[in-house]
Amino acid sequence: MFPFRVINQETTEEVLDMASVIEVVEQAYQMKSDQQATLFPLIFHEFVEGRADMDIKSGHLPAADVFGLKLVSWFGDNAEKGLPQLVGTVMVLDSQTGVPLGILSGEHITCMRTGAAGGIGAKYLARPESENLLIVGTGHQAPFQIMATLMTMENIKRVYICHPKSAEKAQSFTAKIKDKLLTKFVSKYTGDEYECYASRCDVEFIAVENIEDAVRQADIIITATPSRAPMIQKEWVKPGTHITCIGADMEGKQEIDERLFATGRVFVDDVGQAVRVGETEVPIKKGVITEADIEAEIGNVILGRATGRKTAEEITIFDSTGIAIQDLLTATHILKAADKRGVGTIVDL
Amino acid sequence: MFPFRVINQETTEEVLDMASVIEVVEQAYQMKSDQQATLFPLIFHEFVEGRADMDIKSGHLPAADVFGLKLVSWFGDNAEKGLPQLVGTVMVLDSQTGVPLGILSGEHITCMRTGAAGGIGAKYLARPESENLLIVGTGHQAPFQIMATLMTMENIKRVYICHPKSAEKAQSFTAKIKDKLLTKFVSKYTGDEYECYASRCDVEFIAVENIEDAVRQADIIITATPSRAPMIQKEWVKPGTHITCIGADMEGKQEIDERLFATGRVFVDDVGQAVRVGETEVPIKKGVITEADIEAEIGNVILGRATGRKTAEEITIFDSTGIAIQDLLTATHILKAADKRGVGTIVDL
Repeated sequence: MFPFRVINQETTEEVLDMASVIEVVEQAYQMKSDQQATLFPLIFHEFVEGRADMDIKSGHLPAADVFGLKLVSWFGDNAEKGLPQLVGTVMVLDSQTGVPLGILSGEHITCMRTGAAGGIGAKYLARPESENLLIVGTGHQAPFQIMATLMTMENIKRVYICHPKSAEKAQSFTAKIKDKLLTKFVSKYTGDEYECYASRCDVEFIAVENIEDAVRQADIIITATPSRAPMIQKEWVKPGTHITCIGADMEGKQEIDERLFATGRVFVDDVGQAVRVGETEVPIKKGVITEADIEAEIGNVILGRATGRKTAEEITIFDSTGIAIQDLLTATHILKAADKRGVGTIVDL
Repeated sequence: MFPFRVINQETTEEVLDMASVIEVVEQAYQMKSDQQATLFPLIFHEFVEGRADMDIKSGHLPAADVFGLKLVSWFGDNAEKGLPQLVGTVMVLDSQTGVPLGILSGEHITCMRTGAAGGIGAKYLARPESENLLIVGTGHQAPFQIMATLMTMENIKRVYICHPKSAEKAQSFTAKIKDKLLTKFVSKYTGDEYECYASRCDVEFIAVENIEDAVRQADIIITATPSRAPMIQKEWVKPGTHITCIGADMEGKQEIDERLFATGRVFVDDVGQAVRVGETEVPIKKGVITEADIEAEIGNVILGRATGRKTAEEITIFDSTGIAIQDLLTATHILKAADKRGVGTIVDL
């Protein structure tokens, strides 16, 4: 029997703070690009076509002495049953002994590491002086993207918030976002850190009625929607803009004009996954670019082995598809923190 | 958050009894042969060549409304660290909602379902009047094989016990086996069931010095060793013998003379796995038989769609490689029993 820690969603929310997750995800990207991470083959199974599926993403992070998996179920009919459609579970094991270390609720881990990815994309690819951030999508992920980007980009003055179909939803989201950021994220910190991140939230939050106008103003654009057709046209994007695409995670999803890939410099988290299921899928399928036109994986930019932004005029794109090692390293971070704090439930397995 | 049951090894030992596991594994075999089970692709990763690896076996059992996985780590150097070399964990989820139901220690589950497989092989393929059982191998698995076979074969009078290399080990195992069976397995039952299974243990246990002599006596032979060379020669096996091979679970393992496959009728738990990593691998690679010579999967025999033993003279072989749905259905059985008995630890995930 082994002591084995079970971490529920509440505890993942208690333990994780965005600044730490940004650090952890940067490490995960570096490990990946430094061949310090192995992704095992993805297992995917559809229970009911288009209505219920599951996948198992697994891998090994030798630098962190862990391996493990994230199992995600998506059951479209769950809402009628009062259950969440998406349920994720992360299991972490010791790669020196094979002993299971813990099992964690995966929802909040996924939200945090996805938000962190947006912040990291801006940190390494946007112009440092960027003032105008545009968030397209007002779903569950939007606050995570906003907070992470406010943390990594110190000169943001305005956050434009756009719902692709409903100005009303954008308004109601905008009315609440500052409070939400302070309560959900900034309240984790004390002292100077608290002051710093609270002041980062002292920006103007502006609900967008016309997406084109907002795009024309934006220095940084983050799209986090389930869109299957481009919402942002190439002609609207001003020189020097950085765009991070979060939404596309399966074939056929698309958020921005594929022609942007011809003029922009393209970065990804994982080439294979970006080409297969990311925002990069459509531009490649339509022949706008080839895989060879991808500049680099973001991990190589962080490691200084690839150059991120070269000029103040170029458009940069970060296709963030989400990779298992982000989850695994974030989960490992939680297990360590939980051990220190004595939270979670320890059971004998 | 979901209520989620954690079942440690002690609780799996408390909850499982061999007669029930035999039933469960029969069901698992039937589901498989009835296309009521889907096995997902196996994931295998070697951390250190020949010294540390892990695999993830997963699948869906629609008839039981569950899906899930078993992750098994094997770390050869663990003994030096005072840890078990083999650690297994089973995770079960609801295939109607995708919600995780529980996580279970996998060691005892694996031992029990493997023992049950041996009992089932004899039940469907040995001559009912079989009196002499020979067990080759005195490792951790041997008592499970003996108990399951005593349960399914009511006419056994003698159990010959053979260690392929050490007569001494066979003797010391034999001296303790009856007590072990009564304590470990029979003590689970009360009343008539107790009387029945206790009387089944009233047989002669005989340590074998010469394997050839014992094989020549045996009506049923079960091999459960890590052997990589045949221990049993074709010429020693008398007509009408049934042989179940448990040990071979990876390429290169072999317990019995491959020429037995030419004369015997061959049954397997899973054709693909038997051919790739089971006892059937070597005879096929050496051209003794082809895949088409495999009579049937055992599930089809249980379902009555294939004929098991046809005559009292033929030699039958059951190649039991061990499949994920045996674990998954046994784990599901434990979760249901644990729910009724109120055992295991319920945590919110």
